[in-house]
Amino acid sequence: MPVPPNERRPDHPLDSQFIDRWSPRAFSPAPVPRDVLNTLFEAARWAPSCFNEQPWLFLVATEKDDLVRFGDLLSTGNQVWATRAPVLAFLFARRVFSHTGRPNRTFMFDCGAAWMSLALQACKLGLFAHAMAGFKREELYGELGVSPDDYEAICAIAIGSYGDVALLPPDVAAREKPNDRRPISSFVVYGRMGQDAGTEAADSAS
Amino acid sequence: MPVPPNERRPDHPLDSQFIDRWSPRAFSPAPVPRDVLNTLFEAARWAPSCFNEQPWLFLVATEKDDLVRFGDLLSTGNQVWATRAPVLAFLFARRVFSHTGRPNRTFMFDCGAAWMSLALQACKLGLFAHAMAGFKREELYGELGVSPDDYEAICAIAIGSYGDVALLPPDVAAREKPNDRRPISSFVVYGRMGQDAGTEAADSAS
Repeated sequence: MPVPPNERRPDHPLDSQFIDRWSPRAFSPAPVPRDVLNTLFEAARWAPSCFNEQPWLFLVATEKDDLVRFGDLLSTGNQVWATRAPVLAFLFARRVFSHTGRPNRTFMFDCGAAWMSLALQACKLGLFAHAMAGFKREELYGELGVSPDDYEAICAIAIGSYGDVALLPPDVAAREKPNDRRPISSFVVYGRMGQDAGTEAADSAS
Repeated sequence: MPVPPNERRPDHPLDSQFIDRWSPRAFSPAPVPRDVLNTLFEAARWAPSCFNEQPWLFLVATEKDDLVRFGDLLSTGNQVWATRAPVLAFLFARRVFSHTGRPNRTFMFDCGAAWMSLALQACKLGLFAHAMAGFKREELYGELGVSPDDYEAICAIAIGSYGDVALLPPDVAAREKPNDRRPISSFVVYGRMGQDAGTEAADSAS
């Protein structure tokens, strides 16, 4: 299936994987073999984390029954496209350090690094991974047997190859292309805030 | 300067960047040119985020005065090695959505994706980026002119090329090598928790 043109234009040279990766909604139902999934999770595995805690936990659906259960836990807006994906996952994070039981301030941050690794590895294999913050948080823990005392549910992830955009609802299909970003000058400040008067970031802090 | 041997052995094939990236403490003081830093932040720029909010803000020190100020804000344990790096940064995240002012549940997660992109891009250029959760949180906002109402300080980051491990304190030098990880079976569960009886992850949830 043809992938929409990627019209992203970086302002500075960078490795192409960072602009090649995006979050489509047109997924093909073609299965992703288990060995390929192993490679995606292997990439997530090597992400850095505070005290090497590795706070991530992925619950994964690849079989029909599980896909239905996982799909039912997505928000309605995500169900319209994500339930066609051959793989759905929920990413949870352990809230406390294993070795001390004390709160881990960076558990969400570290899981973001693991997620990015997975998404980039998917891209290297011609696949896409699309993370979703919209899911039924109240039902999720019980349905998936995860303790909300131990874990925080972060996002759902659809994984697969590109599919047929014509199968998306028209309003979803209309926004099916890689999105843009603010320039680095909007979020990089040299020195103190306000000192670096030339940047938009300094302005946006006021 | 010679980099310690990377003895990481993946369990599943993956793109080598994920095991090549690690967090050294022996940094060279050799400056990182501004155009190289632009490339690192350009990689962070293209990370995905909820509603494309791009909640990240990097305050960066490359000049002597700023490096001293930033270094003073690190924890003592990090100061012993990180203050040799030619670039120090603090990563902050905006807590609310720009377009609604409502809390953004994934701001830390999205910043983790941006951080990972930066770290991988650094690796592609023969540089290293090492994130630190240990810093003087109480002093940080005032010293750097960032509003704690708007932003959450996530981590400090040292950036540079590899340096002389002999300049590290002996106890720090002793652990100067890429660290290992738990296997994916410890954090990947197919189906519900407990259903996938063969995995360590299911066990560790009890």
